[in-house]
Amino acid sequence: MAISERLQKQMEFLLEMDKSKSVWRQTWLANAERKENDAEHSWHLAVMCLLLGEYANDSIDLLKTVAMVLFHDVIEIEAGDTYAYDEAGHGTKDARERAAAEHLYGILPEDQGEKLKALWEEFEAGETAEAKFARTLDRVQPLMLNDASGGRSWEEHGIAAEQVYRRNELTHTGSEQLWEYARTLIEKNVENGKLRRP
Amino acid sequence: MAISERLQKQMEFLLEMDKSKSVWRQTWLANAERKENDAEHSWHLAVMCLLLGEYANDSIDLLKTVAMVLFHDVIEIEAGDTYAYDEAGHGTKDARERAAAEHLYGILPEDQGEKLKALWEEFEAGETAEAKFARTLDRVQPLMLNDASGGRSWEEHGIAAEQVYRRNELTHTGSEQLWEYARTLIEKNVENGKLRRP
Repeated sequence: MAISERLQKQMEFLLEMDKSKSVWRQTWLANAERKENDAEHSWHLAVMCLLLGEYANDSIDLLKTVAMVLFHDVIEIEAGDTYAYDEAGHGTKDARERAAAEHLYGILPEDQGEKLKALWEEFEAGETAEAKFARTLDRVQPLMLNDASGGRSWEEHGIAAEQVYRRNELTHTGSEQLWEYARTLIEKNVENGKLRRP
Repeated sequence: MAISERLQKQMEFLLEMDKSKSVWRQTWLANAERKENDAEHSWHLAVMCLLLGEYANDSIDLLKTVAMVLFHDVIEIEAGDTYAYDEAGHGTKDARERAAAEHLYGILPEDQGEKLKALWEEFEAGETAEAKFARTLDRVQPLMLNDASGGRSWEEHGIAAEQVYRRNELTHTGSEQLWEYARTLIEKNVENGKLRRP
Protein backbone atom coordinates (compact mmCIF):
# COMPACT_ATOMS: atom_id res chain seq x y z
CA MET A 1 0.00 0.00 0.00
CA ALA A 2 1.54 3.32 -1.05
CA ILE A 3 1.24 6.46 1.09
CA SER A 4 -1.29 8.72 -0.64
CA GLU A 5 -0.50 12.33 -1.50
CA ARG A 6 -3.38 13.30 0.81
CA LEU A 7 -1.86 11.53 3.81
CA GLN A 8 1.58 12.95 3.00
CA LYS A 9 0.18 16.50 3.10
CA GLN A 10 -1.61 15.79 6.37
CA MET A 11 1.54 14.39 7.98
CA GLU A 12 3.58 17.35 6.75
CA PHE A 13 1.07 19.69 8.39
CA LEU A 14 1.04 17.63 11.59
CA LEU A 15 4.83 17.82 11.81
CA GLU A 16 4.64 21.59 11.28
CA MET A 17 2.15 21.71 14.18
CA ASP A 18 4.97 20.51 16.45
CA LYS A 19 6.31 24.08 16.38
CA SER A 20 3.36 25.18 18.57
CA LYS A 21 5.33 23.62 21.41
CA SER A 22 7.97 26.32 20.93
CA VAL A 23 5.69 29.39 20.82
CA TRP A 24 5.97 30.87 24.32
CA ARG A 25 3.20 32.84 25.96
CA GLN A 26 3.43 35.40 28.76
CA THR A 27 1.44 33.24 31.18
CA TRP A 28 3.35 31.33 33.87
CA LEU A 29 2.39 27.77 34.76
CA ALA A 30 0.39 27.43 37.98
CA ASN A 31 3.57 26.35 39.82
CA ALA A 32 5.38 29.44 38.42
CA GLU A 33 8.31 27.28 37.22
CA ARG A 34 8.23 28.60 33.67
CA LYS A 35 5.92 30.15 31.08
CA GLU A 36 3.57 27.98 29.04
CA ASN A 37 3.56 27.44 25.29
CA ASP A 38 0.74 27.43 22.75
CA ALA A 39 0.38 23.63 22.56
CA GLU A 40 -0.01 23.34 26.34
CA HIS A 41 -2.39 26.29 26.46
CA SER A 42 -4.56 24.83 23.69
CA TRP A 43 -4.64 21.43 25.39
CA HIS A 44 -5.75 23.11 28.61
CA LEU A 45 -8.54 25.00 26.80
CA ALA A 46 -9.79 21.78 25.15
CA VAL A 47 -9.90 20.03 28.52
CA MET A 48 -11.77 23.00 30.00
CA CYS A 49 -14.17 23.00 27.09
CA LEU A 50 -15.10 19.35 27.68
CA LEU A 51 -15.68 19.91 31.41
CA LEU A 52 -17.21 23.40 31.40
CA GLY A 53 -19.35 23.27 28.25
CA GLU A 54 -22.43 23.13 30.48
CA TYR A 55 -21.84 26.78 31.43
CA ALA A 56 -22.05 28.17 27.88
CA ASN A 57 -24.76 30.83 27.69
CA ASP A 58 -26.02 29.41 24.41
CA SER A 59 -26.17 25.81 23.28
CA ILE A 60 -22.87 24.88 21.59
CA ASP A 61 -21.60 22.13 19.29
CA LEU A 62 -18.95 20.67 21.61
CA LEU A 63 -16.81 18.97 18.93
CA LYS A 64 -16.69 22.17 16.90
CA THR A 65 -15.73 24.22 19.97
CA VAL A 66 -13.01 21.76 20.99
CA ALA A 67 -11.60 21.84 17.46
CA MET A 68 -11.71 25.64 17.55
CA VAL A 69 -9.65 25.89 20.74
CA LEU A 70 -7.20 23.18 19.64
CA PHE A 71 -6.34 25.19 16.51
CA HIS A 72 -7.00 28.79 17.61
CA ASP A 73 -3.34 29.70 18.13
CA VAL A 74 -1.50 27.61 15.53
CA ILE A 75 -1.09 30.64 13.25
CA GLU A 76 1.33 31.90 15.92
CA ILE A 77 3.85 29.33 14.67
CA GLU A 78 4.53 31.95 12.00
CA ALA A 79 2.94 35.12 13.38
CA GLY A 80 4.31 34.82 16.95
CA ASP A 81 2.39 35.34 20.19
CA THR A 82 1.17 38.89 20.76
CA TYR A 83 0.90 39.63 24.48
CA ALA A 84 -2.62 40.60 25.55
CA TYR A 85 -1.46 44.03 26.72
CA ASP A 86 0.99 44.80 23.89
CA GLU A 87 -0.83 47.64 22.09
CA ALA A 88 1.79 48.21 19.40
CA GLY A 89 1.88 44.48 18.61
CA HIS A 90 -1.87 44.42 18.18
CA GLY A 91 -1.66 46.98 15.37
CA THR A 92 0.05 44.49 13.06
CA LYS A 93 -1.43 41.29 14.54
CA ASP A 94 -4.24 40.82 12.03
CA ALA A 95 -2.10 41.06 8.91
CA ARG A 96 0.61 38.79 10.35
CA GLU A 97 -1.92 36.18 11.42
CA ARG A 98 -3.86 36.22 8.17
CA ALA A 99 -0.71 35.60 6.12
CA ALA A 100 0.25 32.76 8.48
CA ALA A 101 -3.18 31.16 8.13
CA GLU A 102 -2.95 31.24 4.33
CA HIS A 103 0.44 29.58 4.35
CA LEU A 104 -0.09 27.02 7.14
CA TYR A 105 -3.54 25.82 6.12
CA GLY A 106 -2.30 25.72 2.54
CA ILE A 107 -0.12 22.74 3.48
CA LEU A 108 -3.24 20.60 4.06
CA PRO A 109 -5.48 18.97 1.44
CA GLU A 110 -7.76 21.77 0.23
CA ASP A 111 -10.98 20.55 1.91
CA GLN A 112 -9.36 20.33 5.35
CA GLY A 113 -7.34 23.53 4.94
CA GLU A 114 -10.43 25.54 4.00
CA LYS A 115 -12.40 24.09 6.89
CA LEU A 116 -9.73 24.92 9.47
CA LYS A 117 -9.20 28.40 8.10
CA ALA A 118 -12.94 29.06 8.32
CA LEU A 119 -12.97 27.74 11.90
CA TRP A 120 -10.14 30.10 12.84
CA GLU A 121 -11.92 33.04 11.17
CA GLU A 122 -15.07 32.15 13.10
CA PHE A 123 -13.07 32.16 16.34
CA GLU A 124 -11.53 35.54 15.51
CA ALA A 125 -14.90 37.09 14.62
CA GLY A 126 -16.32 35.92 17.95
CA GLU A 127 -19.92 36.02 16.82
CA THR A 128 -21.24 32.44 16.97
CA ALA A 129 -22.09 30.65 20.22
CA GLU A 130 -19.04 28.39 19.79
CA ALA A 131 -16.67 31.29 19.14
CA LYS A 132 -18.02 33.25 22.11
CA PHE A 133 -17.53 30.31 24.45
CA ALA A 134 -14.07 29.49 23.04
CA ARG A 135 -13.01 33.12 23.54
CA THR A 136 -14.33 33.05 27.10
CA LEU A 137 -12.18 30.00 27.86
CA ASP A 138 -9.20 31.72 26.21
CA ARG A 139 -9.62 34.62 28.69
CA VAL A 140 -10.43 32.58 31.80
CA GLN A 141 -7.52 30.10 31.53
CA PRO A 142 -4.74 32.71 31.87
CA LEU A 143 -6.66 34.38 34.74
CA MET A 144 -6.71 31.01 36.50
CA LEU A 145 -2.96 30.52 35.95
CA ASN A 146 -2.05 34.11 36.81
CA ASP A 147 -3.93 33.78 40.08
CA ALA A 148 -2.33 30.38 40.86
CA SER A 149 1.19 31.62 40.09
CA GLY A 150 0.79 34.59 42.45
CA GLY A 151 0.04 37.18 39.76
CA ARG A 152 3.57 36.85 38.40
CA SER A 153 2.80 37.84 34.80
CA TRP A 154 0.70 40.85 35.91
CA GLU A 155 3.45 42.08 38.22
CA GLU A 156 6.14 41.58 35.56
CA HIS A 157 4.25 43.81 33.15
CA GLY A 158 2.75 46.20 35.75
CA ILE A 159 -0.81 45.45 34.64
CA ALA A 160 -3.73 47.39 36.14
CA ALA A 161 -7.09 45.89 37.06
CA GLU A 162 -8.69 48.24 34.56
CA GLN A 163 -6.70 46.69 31.70
CA VAL A 164 -7.84 43.22 32.72
CA TYR A 165 -11.45 44.36 32.90
CA ARG A 166 -11.18 46.00 29.48
CA ARG A 167 -9.67 42.86 27.96
CA ASN A 168 -12.52 40.86 29.50
CA GLU A 169 -15.34 43.12 28.35
CA LEU A 170 -16.89 40.31 26.32
CA THR A 171 -16.00 37.35 28.54
CA HIS A 172 -19.53 37.26 29.96
CA THR A 173 -21.00 36.80 26.48
CA GLY A 174 -19.66 33.23 26.34
CA SER A 175 -20.64 32.31 29.88
CA GLU A 176 -22.08 34.46 32.66
CA GLN A 177 -21.08 31.85 35.23
CA LEU A 178 -17.45 31.58 34.12
CA TRP A 179 -17.21 35.36 33.98
CA GLU A 180 -18.51 35.50 37.56
CA TYR A 181 -15.77 33.06 38.55
CA ALA A 182 -13.15 35.10 36.67
CA ARG A 183 -14.35 38.29 38.35
CA THR A 184 -13.73 36.80 41.81
CA LEU A 185 -10.15 36.01 40.73
CA ILE A 186 -9.58 39.55 39.46
CA GLU A 187 -11.00 41.13 42.62
CA LYS A 188 -8.91 38.84 44.83
CA ASN A 189 -5.78 39.99 43.00
CA VAL A 190 -6.72 43.65 43.24
CA GLU A 191 -7.13 43.19 46.98
CA ASN A 192 -3.81 41.39 47.47
CA GLY A 193 -1.99 43.97 45.34
CA LYS A 194 -0.99 41.74 42.41
CA LEU A 195 -3.06 43.88 40.04
CA ARG A 196 -2.49 47.64 40.15
CA ARG A 197 -5.46 49.82 40.93
CA PRO A 198 -5.97 52.44 38.19
CA MET B 1 -24.14 35.07 41.79
CA ALA B 2 -22.15 32.72 44.06
CA ILE B 3 -19.66 30.19 42.68
CA SER B 4 -21.31 26.77 42.96
CA GLU B 5 -19.61 23.83 44.68
CA ARG B 6 -19.78 22.03 41.33
CA LEU B 7 -17.83 24.75 39.52
CA GLN B 8 -15.33 24.96 42.38
CA LYS B 9 -14.58 21.24 42.06
CA GLN B 10 -14.22 21.55 38.29
CA MET B 11 -11.82 24.47 38.61
CA GLU B 12 -9.79 22.64 41.25
CA PHE B 13 -9.45 19.69 38.86
CA LEU B 14 -8.57 21.98 35.94
CA LEU B 15 -5.81 23.59 37.99
CA GLU B 16 -4.51 20.12 38.91
CA MET B 17 -4.45 19.34 35.18
CA ASP B 18 -1.78 22.04 34.79
CA LYS B 19 0.71 19.52 36.18
CA SER B 20 0.49 17.55 32.91
CA LYS B 21 2.75 20.27 31.52
CA SER B 22 5.49 19.04 33.87
CA VAL B 23 5.31 15.30 33.13
CA TRP B 24 8.20 14.69 30.73
CA ARG B 25 8.19 11.95 28.12
CA GLN B 26 11.14 10.28 26.42
CA THR B 27 10.21 11.64 22.99
CA TRP B 28 12.15 14.60 21.63
CA LEU B 29 10.40 17.43 19.80
CA ALA B 30 10.75 17.31 16.01
CA ASN B 31 13.46 20.01 16.20
CA ALA B 32 15.29 17.92 18.87
CA GLU B 33 15.58 20.96 21.18
CA ARG B 34 14.08 19.21 24.19
CA LYS B 35 11.74 16.37 25.16
CA GLU B 36 7.99 16.86 25.09
CA ASN B 37 5.57 16.74 28.00
CA ASP B 38 2.19 15.05 28.40
CA ALA B 39 0.09 18.17 27.75
CA GLU B 40 1.87 18.85 24.45
CA HIS B 41 1.71 15.19 23.44
CA SER B 42 -2.04 15.04 24.17
CA TRP B 43 -2.67 18.23 22.22
CA HIS B 44 -0.78 16.76 19.27
CA LEU B 45 -2.84 13.56 19.41
CA ALA B 46 -6.10 15.53 19.49
CA VAL B 47 -5.06 17.55 16.45
CA MET B 48 -4.07 14.32 14.66
CA CYS B 49 -7.39 12.76 15.59
CA LEU B 50 -9.35 15.62 13.99
CA LEU B 51 -7.33 15.45 10.77
CA LEU B 52 -6.77 11.70 10.44
CA GLY B 53 -10.08 10.33 11.71
CA GLU B 54 -10.94 9.40 8.12
CA TYR B 55 -8.31 6.63 8.27
CA ALA B 56 -9.87 4.76 11.22
CA ASN B 57 -10.59 1.13 10.23
CA ASP B 58 -13.99 1.29 11.90
CA SER B 59 -16.40 4.20 12.15
CA ILE B 60 -15.56 6.26 15.26
CA ASP B 61 -17.30 8.87 17.41
CA LEU B 62 -14.85 11.72 16.84
CA LEU B 63 -15.75 13.77 19.94
CA LYS B 64 -15.36 10.72 22.15
CA THR B 65 -12.00 9.85 20.58
CA VAL B 66 -10.71 13.41 20.94
CA ALA B 67 -11.76 13.43 24.61
CA MET B 68 -10.02 10.07 25.06
CA VAL B 69 -6.68 11.30 23.76
CA LEU B 70 -6.92 14.62 25.61
CA PHE B 71 -7.23 12.77 28.93
CA HIS B 72 -5.39 9.49 28.25
CA ASP B 73 -2.20 10.46 30.10
CA VAL B 74 -3.42 12.72 32.92
CA ILE B 75 -3.07 9.90 35.47
CA GLU B 76 0.70 10.33 34.91
CA ILE B 77 0.48 13.54 36.98
CA GLU B 78 0.59 11.15 39.92
CA ALA B 79 1.77 7.86 38.39
CA GLY B 80 4.63 9.32 36.29
CA ASP B 81 5.45 8.50 32.67
CA THR B 82 6.59 4.93 32.06
CA TYR B 83 8.89 4.75 29.03
CA ALA B 84 7.59 2.46 26.31
CA TYR B 85 10.63 0.17 26.57
CA ASP B 86 11.01 0.17 30.39
CA GLU B 87 10.06 -3.42 31.23
CA ALA B 88 10.53 -3.14 35.00
CA GLY B 89 8.42 0.03 35.12
CA HIS B 90 5.61 -1.71 33.26
CA GLY B 91 5.30 -4.29 36.05
CA THR B 92 3.96 -1.67 38.50
CA LYS B 93 2.36 0.65 35.93
CA ASP B 94 -1.21 -0.64 36.23
CA ALA B 95 -1.47 -0.35 40.02
CA ARG B 96 0.14 3.11 40.06
CA GLU B 97 -2.14 4.38 37.32
CA ARG B 98 -5.31 2.94 38.81
CA ALA B 99 -4.65 4.61 42.18
CA ALA B 100 -3.94 7.90 40.40
CA ALA B 101 -7.20 7.68 38.43
CA GLU B 102 -9.21 7.12 41.62
CA HIS B 103 -7.67 10.13 43.29
CA LEU B 104 -7.58 12.55 40.36
CA TYR B 105 -11.04 11.86 38.98
CA GLY B 106 -12.34 11.95 42.56
CA ILE B 107 -11.69 15.70 42.58
CA LEU B 108 -14.43 16.23 39.97
CA PRO B 109 -18.21 16.21 40.51
CA GLU B 110 -19.16 12.53 40.59
CA ASP B 111 -20.92 12.37 37.20
CA GLN B 112 -17.94 13.85 35.36
CA GLY B 113 -15.35 11.91 37.36
CA GLU B 114 -17.04 8.59 36.63
CA LYS B 115 -17.38 9.42 32.96
CA LEU B 116 -13.71 10.32 32.57
CA LYS B 117 -12.53 7.30 34.53
CA ALA B 118 -14.63 5.05 32.29
CA LEU B 119 -13.19 6.75 29.20
CA TRP B 120 -9.64 6.15 30.45
CA GLU B 121 -10.45 2.49 31.22
CA GLU B 122 -11.88 2.13 27.72
CA PHE B 123 -8.65 3.55 26.28
CA GLU B 124 -6.54 1.19 28.37
CA ALA B 125 -8.62 -1.87 27.39
CA GLY B 126 -8.20 -0.96 23.71
CA GLU B 127 -11.24 -2.88 22.53
CA THR B 128 -13.67 -0.33 21.10
CA ALA B 129 -13.18 1.34 17.72
CA GLU B 130 -12.42 4.65 19.47
CA ALA B 131 -9.85 3.10 21.83
CA LYS B 132 -8.15 1.25 18.98
CA PHE B 133 -7.83 4.41 16.93
CA ALA B 134 -6.69 6.50 19.93
CA ARG B 135 -4.01 3.90 20.71
CA THR B 136 -2.87 3.90 17.09
CA LEU B 137 -2.39 7.68 17.23
CA ASP B 138 -0.54 7.28 20.55
CA ARG B 139 1.94 4.95 18.79
CA VAL B 140 2.26 6.86 15.52
CA GLN B 141 2.92 10.31 17.02
CA PRO B 142 6.20 9.37 18.77
CA LEU B 143 7.34 7.48 15.64
CA MET B 144 6.77 10.67 13.66
CA LEU B 145 8.75 12.75 16.18
CA ASN B 146 11.51 10.15 16.60
CA ASP B 147 11.98 10.11 12.85
CA ALA B 148 11.95 13.93 12.60
CA SER B 149 14.46 14.33 15.45
CA GLY B 150 16.91 11.93 13.81
CA GLY B 151 16.04 8.91 15.94
CA ARG B 152 17.49 10.58 19.02
CA SER B 153 15.33 8.81 21.60
CA TRP B 154 15.94 5.39 19.99
CA GLU B 155 19.70 5.95 19.91
CA GLU B 156 19.75 7.19 23.52
CA HIS B 157 18.10 3.99 24.70
CA GLY B 158 19.67 1.62 22.14
CA ILE B 159 16.29 0.48 20.86
CA ALA B 160 16.11 -2.34 18.27
CA ALA B 161 13.68 -2.42 15.36
CA GLU B 162 12.23 -5.61 16.81
CA GLN B 163 11.20 -3.79 19.99
CA VAL B 164 9.44 -1.11 17.96
CA TYR B 165 7.63 -3.74 15.90
CA ARG B 166 6.57 -5.59 19.06
CA ARG B 167 5.28 -2.39 20.65
CA ASN B 168 3.33 -1.72 17.45
CA GLU B 169 1.80 -5.16 17.09
CA LEU B 170 -1.72 -3.73 17.39
CA THR B 171 -1.20 -0.38 15.65
CA HIS B 172 -2.79 -1.71 12.45
CA THR B 173 -6.02 -2.55 14.32
CA GLY B 174 -6.83 1.18 14.64
CA SER B 175 -5.85 2.10 11.10
CA GLU B 176 -4.24 0.00 8.38
CA GLN B 177 -3.27 3.15 6.48
CA LEU B 178 -1.59 4.87 9.42
CA TRP B 179 0.23 1.67 10.26
CA GLU B 180 1.49 1.51 6.68
CA TYR B 181 2.79 5.06 7.09
CA ALA B 182 4.40 4.18 10.44
CA ARG B 183 6.03 1.11 8.91
CA THR B 184 7.77 3.24 6.26
CA LEU B 185 9.20 5.40 9.07
CA ILE B 186 10.48 2.36 10.97
CA GLU B 187 12.07 0.84 7.86
CA LYS B 188 13.70 4.14 6.95
CA ASN B 189 15.30 4.29 10.42
CA VAL B 190 16.48 0.70 10.27
CA GLU B 191 18.16 1.52 6.96
CA ASN B 192 19.85 4.68 8.21
CA GLY B 193 21.03 2.92 11.38
CA LYS B 194 18.97 4.86 13.95
CA LEU B 195 17.19 1.65 14.99
CA ARG B 196 19.38 -1.34 15.81
CA ARG B 197 18.85 -4.49 13.82
CA PRO B 198 18.11 -7.46 16.12
